[in-house]
Amino acid sequence: MGEKWKTGVSHVEPNRIVIRGHEIADLLGKVSFSQALFLLWTGKLPSQQVGRLMDAVMIGAMDHGASPPSVIAARTVASTGAPLNASMAAGLLALDKFHGAAIEDCMRVLDGIVAEVRDAGTPLPAAVGSYLQGLKQRKGRAPGFGHRMHTKDPRVDAIFTLAGDCEIAGKHIEAARELERQISAGAGRPLPINIDGCIAAVFCEIGFPLELSNALFRLCRLSGITAQAHEERLRQKPMRKIDAGAFEYDGPLPGK
Amino acid sequence: MGEKWKTGVSHVEPNRIVIRGHEIADLLGKVSFSQALFLLWTGKLPSQQVGRLMDAVMIGAMDHGASPPSVIAARTVASTGAPLNASMAAGLLALDKFHGAAIEDCMRVLDGIVAEVRDAGTPLPAAVGSYLQGLKQRKGRAPGFGHRMHTKDPRVDAIFTLAGDCEIAGKHIEAARELERQISAGAGRPLPINIDGCIAAVFCEIGFPLELSNALFRLCRLSGITAQAHEERLRQKPMRKIDAGAFEYDGPLPGK
Amino acid sequence: MGEKWKTGVSHVEPNRIVIRGHEIADLLGKVSFSQALFLLWTGKLPSQQVGRLMDAVMIGAMDHGASPPSVIAARTVASTGAPLNASMAAGLLALDKFHGAAIEDCMRVLDGIVAEVRDAGTPLPAAVGSYLQGLKQRKGRAPGFGHRMHTKDPRVDAIFTLAGDCEIAGKHIEAARELERQISAGAGRPLPINIDGCIAAVFCEIGFPLELSNALFRLCRLSGITAQAHEERLRQKPMRKIDAGAFEYDGPLPGK
Amino acid sequence: MGEKWKTGVSHVEPNRIVIRGHEIADLLGKVSFSQALFLLWTGKLPSQQVGRLMDAVMIGAMDHGASPPSVIAARTVASTGAPLNASMAAGLLALDKFHGAAIEDCMRVLDGIVAEVRDAGTPLPAAVGSYLQGLKQRKGRAPGFGHRMHTKDPRVDAIFTLAGDCEIAGKHIEAARELERQISAGAGRPLPINIDGCIAAVFCEIGFPLELSNALFRLCRLSGITAQAHEERLRQKPMRKIDAGAFEYDGPLPGK
Repeated sequence: MGEKWKTGVSHVEPNRIVIRGHEIADLLGKVSFSQALFLLWTGKLPSQQVGRLMDAVMIGAMDHGASPPSVIAARTVASTGAPLNASMAAGLLALDKFHGAAIEDCMRVLDGIVAEVRDAGTPLPAAVGSYLQGLKQRKGRAPGFGHRMHTKDPRVDAIFTLAGDCEIAGKHIEAARELERQISAGAGRPLPINIDGCIAAVFCEIGFPLELSNALFRLCRLSGITAQAHEERLRQKPMRKIDAGAFEYDGPLPGK
Repeated sequence: MGEKWKTGVSHVEPNRIVIRGHEIADLLGKVSFSQALFLLWTGKLPSQQVGRLMDAVMIGAMDHGASPPSVIAARTVASTGAPLNASMAAGLLALDKFHGAAIEDCMRVLDGIVAEVRDAGTPLPAAVGSYLQGLKQRKGRAPGFGHRMHTKDPRVDAIFTLAGDCEIAGKHIEAARELERQISAGAGRPLPINIDGCIAAVFCEIGFPLELSNALFRLCRLSGITAQAHEERLRQKPMRKIDAGAFEYDGPLPGK
Repeated sequence: MGEKWKTGVSHVEPNRIVIRGHEIADLLGKVSFSQALFLLWTGKLPSQQVGRLMDAVMIGAMDHGASPPSVIAARTVASTGAPLNASMAAGLLALDKFHGAAIEDCMRVLDGIVAEVRDAGTPLPAAVGSYLQGLKQRKGRAPGFGHRMHTKDPRVDAIFTLAGDCEIAGKHIEAARELERQISAGAGRPLPINIDGCIAAVFCEIGFPLELSNALFRLCRLSGITAQAHEERLRQKPMRKIDAGAFEYDGPLPGK
Repeated sequence: MGEKWKTGVSHVEPNRIVIRGHEIADLLGKVSFSQALFLLWTGKLPSQQVGRLMDAVMIGAMDHGASPPSVIAARTVASTGAPLNASMAAGLLALDKFHGAAIEDCMRVLDGIVAEVRDAGTPLPAAVGSYLQGLKQRKGRAPGFGHRMHTKDPRVDAIFTLAGDCEIAGKHIEAARELERQISAGAGRPLPINIDGCIAAVFCEIGFPLELSNALFRLCRLSGITAQAHEERLRQKPMRKIDAGAFEYDGPLPGK
């Protein structure tokens, strides 16, 4: 019998489950799902305040209508009579480079700018300006800014306000706001912080690991993908030809 | 241009996102992720109490060590250098018939027993006895009871206690407890309610739709799968031959 | 060290690879891919004639234009910048109940009819009639017949003719033809043998195992799915909204 | 109605199917599956000789025992009661960076060396030497050479011999052989051309597109993955703990 391989995620023995050093019974009913998830992924149990902010970020990531490719992939699979986990898997596979992958990149940008301000004493506007100039030379686009539909994403203000209320807003959110100002000024039109950029700034503030940031978005978005795939099974005929641009909402609207 | 297809999940227009009739900004910071998820999947925004119970259930479902096939599938994929969403998708595909699929079946059983008591006036012990007798004749096994490792699952008491505290415990949890008593008595050894059965009873009490119950388990378990796949990438050599039965926990244990 | 688990598929030792009892070097250059695949899946190396027929069946299954959900799922995933194997996996997940799953069912039907003729001496037309009458009472549809587009599938005659040339056509193909006659007569319009029914009849004749029949279709169709996903990456913009019913062919046409 | 999107892969109209400019009926029974696959993926119908070589390459890629992660992932998924296409999808997702991805890289290397010889007139040994020196400086490893088990891969000689018989062997195979000589000499032990390198050299000779080369390997290997997942369902208990290093072959061995 060779040496056993090691894991530090969780420990299970008869009548006992330990998650990252915490008895499962000490978590149940005591912390929120988002706090437990933070613990499970990072090994650190965050405060209730961080949990509230995580909840908001996770709700912000849940769903964005029926048109994103992850939804269309999941609905398309569902329409062939496939089980729900197959739809969910296909939806996840459609959360790739161009769809749900900007958070990590944006975190790197914000971390870089904040480090420049902190370590070199560069004023924030100059640090942002210098980053944007480099980007322009490389003909790159700033990850986490601009949206094909929203000029003012309804999720961003709410989440940043909550971050302030929770006393979590700091240098990274400031940097994101300064980026938004300069990018929009440079373009001559609003290129606002989008949900990816917003989550990136919050994650930097709360110390969420960047290499798991896109995965968290994917996990949360999977809740929307699942709702959409389930609706496909309930309301649509099998094997229909889906037009990803030709749907309309027939659910309730607020205050009506 | 033909007729548009319909969806009632969510509505997106410039600078506005509506989830099942609620402005996204009215959810952010106001409700927990679990409440928003319940809304997204069912169209109904549950109370804060239900949210607390959902959080506990979702934490209970998150992870159960490194040995389940969903973890091994995800780790195996990770060990080939695949991106994290591919590991997550493979993990989901391993949550099938024999792994994470008992909740829906158990909900049907509990609903049947509670209906029998309510509609025919059969006493609970007799209704449970009659179900178990039928099961015996069909040589079936009751879904949601028994565990290969735990004789007393540490998650179950904590969640049922919380259900009581939240004033949510009712007929379905009673039925689950009676089933546990009779099944264990019949077998002459403890065949306790397991996490699937526990979630099933709670979901019956809070009106969570049975056809989405296994999907919720899968979504939550994916958080553990992701943590494990990420650890595989961080701590193990690529292309190793994984022995699913030969690992040990080297993380912290609670200070006791 | 416990007992080792067993496999009969293939054996690998230093400088040696054995597939189902055959040295790999005895297959390379000696048999076709389709013959080797038959061997790998069934343990029996088929004749060259069976190989030719398998090749035809496998070509017939390769592709059927850009509209099937398996293609749309794979293209949708590709449009998010995902790697090709993620597209291929999503395509496979869309080959489910209503799409590429009729071959096995049709093989069961044909086997049943041929057994009835052989064992009970029922004449073929009566055996087919009796099956169709039962189906009508159950309000079922015969798997493997009818096509939303073709009244005469261009693949079917070619494959059945080849089966005749290879001296493989027998009772199952006869039964399929008789089913086609009676189903079309009953409906008052052509409900021809489709590619699923055609493959089913051929597989019955050559002894291909029915529980792997749909898997073979899926493997072959994956070649079309891959071609389509690759074209998506080459010719289309990322993140486009795909309309599954609004494409046209701009490749070459024969003899023009 | 907007403009239709374009595809050049295949065309379907009532009673007609065209693959890359060829009527499907002109392919069925006339060409091999491998020739049709080459056509489907590249738009060019290759000669029968190229078809024979493709068949050999595809057989060489089919299976390599039960230990590769793609097999373990597929078996692990199968052991949860999942349908076969879910196992196949998980297997595909495990064919990533470190497993089945060296063909494209090796083709680039061989193309580079052959171009150097052709365009700059550098003798082959010098071109190979110069490539290996650069590799050493970058501390890289040559893709397509060396095998953890075989010192002389039984597939390679057979395929290169066939390439000679088919009059297809040329500069790229020569370059691969020279690389093998120099790499092995430099290491002081055999670091032979492996199946990836062998396929790479053949694909360079027959003009198979490099960006589809790994995909072809994956498609072929999926046939082995499927056979293994199917065997898991037939021969093993559900939910077993698989040890990827502890199996043995109990099938037939060649007549010895």
